Amino acid sequence: MKIILDVMSGDSGCEAAVLGAVNAYRNTGVEVTLVGDETQIHEVFKKHTLSLDGMTVLHAPQVITMEDDPVRAVREKRNSSMSIGLTALKKGEGDAFISAGNTGALLTGATLLVGRIPGVRRAALAIQLPSSGAYGPLLIDCGANSECSVEYLMQFALMGNAYMRDACHVENPRVCLLSNGTEEHKGNALVQETHKALRAAHEAGQLNFCGNIEGRDVLGDVADVIVCDGFTGNVLLKTIEGAGMTLMAKVKEAMMTNLFTKLAAAIIKPKLRPLKKMTDYRETGGTPILGISRPVFKAHGSSDARAYESAIRVAAAYCESGATEKIAEAIAKMA
Amino acid sequence: MKIILDVMSGDSGCEAAVLGAVNAYRNTGVEVTLVGDETQIHEVFKKHTLSLDGMTVLHAPQVITMEDDPVRAVREKRNSSMSIGLTALKKGEGDAFISAGNTGALLTGATLLVGRIPGVRRAALAIQLPSSGAYGPLLIDCGANSECSVEYLMQFALMGNAYMRDACHVENPRVCLLSNGTEEHKGNALVQETHKALRAAHEAGQLNFCGNIEGRDVLGDVADVIVCDGFTGNVLLKTIEGAGMTLMAKVKEAMMTNLFTKLAAAIIKPKLRPLKKMTDYRETGGTPILGISRPVFKAHGSSDARAYESAIRVAAAYCESGATEKIAEAIAKMA
Repeated sequence: MKIILDVMSGDSGCEAAVLGAVNAYRNTGVEVTLVGDETQIHEVFKKHTLSLDGMTVLHAPQVITMEDDPVRAVREKRNSSMSIGLTALKKGEGDAFISAGNTGALLTGATLLVGRIPGVRRAALAIQLPSSGAYGPLLIDCGANSECSVEYLMQFALMGNAYMRDACHVENPRVCLLSNGTEEHKGNALVQETHKALRAAHEAGQLNFCGNIEGRDVLGDVADVIVCDGFTGNVLLKTIEGAGMTLMAKVKEAMMTNLFTKLAAAIIKPKLRPLKKMTDYRETGGTPILGISRPVFKAHGSSDARAYESAIRVAAAYCESGATEKIAEAIAKMA
Repeated sequence: MKIILDVMSGDSGCEAAVLGAVNAYRNTGVEVTLVGDETQIHEVFKKHTLSLDGMTVLHAPQVITMEDDPVRAVREKRNSSMSIGLTALKKGEGDAFISAGNTGALLTGATLLVGRIPGVRRAALAIQLPSSGAYGPLLIDCGANSECSVEYLMQFALMGNAYMRDACHVENPRVCLLSNGTEEHKGNALVQETHKALRAAHEAGQLNFCGNIEGRDVLGDVADVIVCDGFTGNVLLKTIEGAGMTLMAKVKEAMMTNLFTKLAAAIIKPKLRPLKKMTDYRETGGTPILGISRPVFKAHGSSDARAYESAIRVAAAYCESGATEKIAEAIAKMA
């Protein structure tokens, strides 16, 4: 198993990525190709007196930044760590590619340089929502495609289903459609049509469609896959983030009122750790871009060494599961 | 000032509504026409030995339930408290109408029986999001129109702007457009086009457009009016509700871990009350259906006496502000 890692595009720089890769190799034996500025990479090895065992360095002099326009960056920065890494994946020089960089550029690059699974109309960004269980529900699409058709949403459902079943080992995943009401007639025209198509796919035994889901239930244990267009999915994801931050800030404020509440907070805080862990991206590792012919993962922009290690572990497990092949099978059956 | 109140359609029954109306009259002098089953209404007066001062009873033998199909219910249940109340409003027998019943039926009834402001294409459901300040941002539309055009969204912006400025006395309200990114090119086709139209309206001095807003900022102090289609608005609103419930349940769970955390919780809980108040619908009272030619308010389905009293107060203040006339002016200027 060999993972290709973009060590340049994350917010915390090259060092965190290299350390995460070395730790991942130590703990799991997964080899890593480090793509980035070779001088900077070797400096990290020197500084921490690390062994190069299990590591390969692939030099890339350019970096795609968070501010770069996705399409232009992929077209023009051919020597960026992201472009060189994706090209190496395409050539079969590794089993998966991970980057913590510009999401739009990663999506564009994966589509242009690696290519979609035959029959897949659009690659989608899938993210697992926070959950107290082992696996939160997979929200697909959460930002790649603002404008969707019924066919796109059907493919998101099939891809999400295969991912949860084969990569996450969830038996018979509950696939739900995001809407503004649970009744089947609820939703805009796209959602109403997709509801019918999902119902038909359910009856044909292609997936386990459990109907519409409302915003208030997405964090409950109701669905394993939540299907929506990328515009709504992105609003949903960021609303959860914002509501969580606002509420936790208010709880913290209440705890800091006076000496007594501060003492009380000291007792309660350790018990709030599972909640923190639940919403900690460093635990989740990478999130897959589904629909690409070879595994591509997006790590969180502010990944530290631990987050990179998690992402490598998640990507390796994904490769072993053969989920990409299962997605290709599901799409082929649909077409 | 006289408010027409549907006392039958809420989940908590006739008693809560009647008590709320009597309290509102006692505390503010606002007269109320109680629409509903007259026997039940008089029983509440007898049971609590209340005076009928300031009250008028308008008999309505039927009730539209939460399960009723909105359009059919309005067409067929002509003797329902909602239909009779809306007709009384149309005839000028009161200054505003409030119901805690079926939202879809109230929207349909308001449109069919009272009518829209000339030029308004669609009435919209507006709700104020929780906030620690006096007024949370107004989310418009939050569920009335799943399918929207640029024109609808522009009208929602103008109506929301007039409501916040004239009814809530917010100076130069910050109008934002919900999108999946703050950059102006972000969003689906509808949002991108609406962005341009709002920018033009801003330049024409019609409103203070402050650009796109993302889900993560809706609870921050960024906007006074958040414009979106009713599908996305509904998902957003319910996601805040769900995320809030999930997080608060986790905080509660942490507090109940053992004897020490329970003692600590007893100290912190009173300080959490502002947070509870912030998310308490009984404080907010009613939420307006904007675009109707006379003021119509939706009270929360599970309103108790206090919530009804708040709703009456909010509706009376709205009538005094002349916001409906200001909305009509803004729409006339646009057309």
